Amino acid sequence: MKRSIEDTSIVFVGAGNLATNLAKALYRKGFRIMQVYSRTEESARALAETIEATYTTDLQQLADNAQLYIVSLKDTAFVELLPQITSRKADALFVHTAGSIPMNLWEGYAKRYGVFYPMQTFSKQREVSFREIPFFIEAASAEDTEMLKTIAATLSDKVYEATSEQRKSLHLAAVFTCNFTNHMYALAADLLEKYNLPFDAMLPLIDETARKVHELSPRDAQTGPAMRYDENVIRKHLAMLDDDPAVQDIYKLISKSIHEHHQL
Amino acid sequence: MKRSIEDTSIVFVGAGNLATNLAKALYRKGFRIMQVYSRTEESARALAETIEATYTTDLQQLADNAQLYIVSLKDTAFVELLPQITSRKADALFVHTAGSIPMNLWEGYAKRYGVFYPMQTFSKQREVSFREIPFFIEAASAEDTEMLKTIAATLSDKVYEATSEQRKSLHLAAVFTCNFTNHMYALAADLLEKYNLPFDAMLPLIDETARKVHELSPRDAQTGPAMRYDENVIRKHLAMLDDDPAVQDIYKLISKSIHEHHQL
Repeated sequence: MKRSIEDTSIVFVGAGNLATNLAKALYRKGFRIMQVYSRTEESARALAETIEATYTTDLQQLADNAQLYIVSLKDTAFVELLPQITSRKADALFVHTAGSIPMNLWEGYAKRYGVFYPMQTFSKQREVSFREIPFFIEAASAEDTEMLKTIAATLSDKVYEATSEQRKSLHLAAVFTCNFTNHMYALAADLLEKYNLPFDAMLPLIDETARKVHELSPRDAQTGPAMRYDENVIRKHLAMLDDDPAVQDIYKLISKSIHEHHQL
Repeated sequence: MKRSIEDTSIVFVGAGNLATNLAKALYRKGFRIMQVYSRTEESARALAETIEATYTTDLQQLADNAQLYIVSLKDTAFVELLPQITSRKADALFVHTAGSIPMNLWEGYAKRYGVFYPMQTFSKQREVSFREIPFFIEAASAEDTEMLKTIAATLSDKVYEATSEQRKSLHLAAVFTCNFTNHMYALAADLLEKYNLPFDAMLPLIDETARKVHELSPRDAQTGPAMRYDENVIRKHLAMLDDDPAVQDIYKLISKSIHEHHQL
C-alpha cells in the first residue's frame, strides 16, 4: 500500500542545534520520528520529549527498523561512529546533514545513502522558519534523490540538488556570511560593553547591512574608512585596540583586504 | 518672527554617500538646502539638482549666509579645509557628521559648532529610511544641542546625545558590525563566483544571522566549525583557500578568535 511521505519512519542520530530544529520541523509536518540518539542523555531526552520519540545514548540500542536515518554529528564523531550507525540496517536510507562532508563517506557502510543539507544557522534557543531555507540534496540513487527532495519540499520552497563539491563551497561561503559575520557582531558587542554602550544601538546598522546586499553586490555595498582608505580613522581605531592585539590584528587584516578589493 | 525648524537654511559641504542621503531626507522633510559643495563637479551637481540647491566646487564661493553648515568630508579633507569652510560665517552653526572626529576640532574656527552623526551605512544607489537610524548629537552649547536634536527628530525616532568619546566607540563598533560584516559577504561572493554558485543562495542565511542577534547575544548566537572547534572542517576549509593566502589568514585569525571567545 502506498502511503504518504510523512509516514516515513525516521531516526535522528545527533541532537544538536541542527538536528533539534530539523526534527521539530519534520515532527510538526506530521513525520513519525521513532528515536533520537545523542551522546548526552540531556540532549537526547530534551529533543525526544518534544517530538514524542524514544531516545538512547547507546548506539547498540539504535532502532534497526527505521526507513530513514538522519545523522547530524560533528565531522570527527561521524567518521568514528559510521560503522555502528549503519550496522544491521541493510535496507534503510542514511543521510547526513553536513555541508562539509562528502557523500562518499557512506560508501562501503550503507547501500542507500545521501545528504540532506539545510543551509542555515541553527540554535536550540531560537526556532527558525524553514520555508526560506535552501536545502541541498544529494543521494546515491535517483529514487532516493527524489525521496529526499520530496521530504525537503514539505519544509522548504527552496530545494536544490548539489554535488558534494558544490556543497563544500557553499559551506565555506556560509562560514564567512554567517559564522564570521556573527563574530564581527560579537567583537562589536565586547567593545560596546567596555564603553558602557548598548549593543542594541547597532541593530539598525546590522539590519541595513544585511538588507543592502539583496539589492547591491557586497562590493558595491561597501562603505567605511578601509574602503575610503581614510588612514586617519584607521590609525585612531588601531590605537583604541591597543589593549587587545588579537582584535587589532583582525582589524588590520580585514581593512587591508577591503582596501585591496577596492583597488582592483 | 519665530519660524519653523524646516526654515533653517542649510549648506552641505561634501556630496558623498552620507551627505547625499541626509540632504535628500532633509529636503523631503521641507528643509531649505541652499547650496552643495563638492570637490568634484559631478557629485556636487548630481546632489544639487535632486534637492533644488545651487552648487559649487570652490570653497571661496561657499554661501556665507546659511544658518547651518553640515560638513561631510573624509577626515583628512575636513582638517585641511576647516579654515576655509568657517571663514566669514561668524554666526552660523557648523556640524560634522563623522563618528570618528571629536567635536573640539571646530574650536578656534567657529563659535557655534557640534556633531550630527547618523549611524548607518549609506550608498548613493540605495535610499534608506531614516526613521530607525540612531542620530548621535553633540554641540558646544545647550541651545545648539536642542536645535540639532529638533532637526534630527524630524527624520528619526532615535535621537540621542553622545560625547565625542562615546561616538568614537560607536563608530569603531560600527566598523565591525557593518564594514567588516559586509566584507565577509564580499569574500563569500568571491568564493561562490569561483565555483559558479549564485550569491543569492546566501541571503536567507545572511538575514537569519542578522535577525538572530535581535533575540540572542552574538555570543549565544554563534554556531559553526570554529565554535565547535571542528578541526577536520577547519583544515578542509583552509586547504580550499590555499590559492588565496590573504583570505586564508583572515579565516585562521577569525576562527582562532571565535574559538578563544568560547573557551572563556
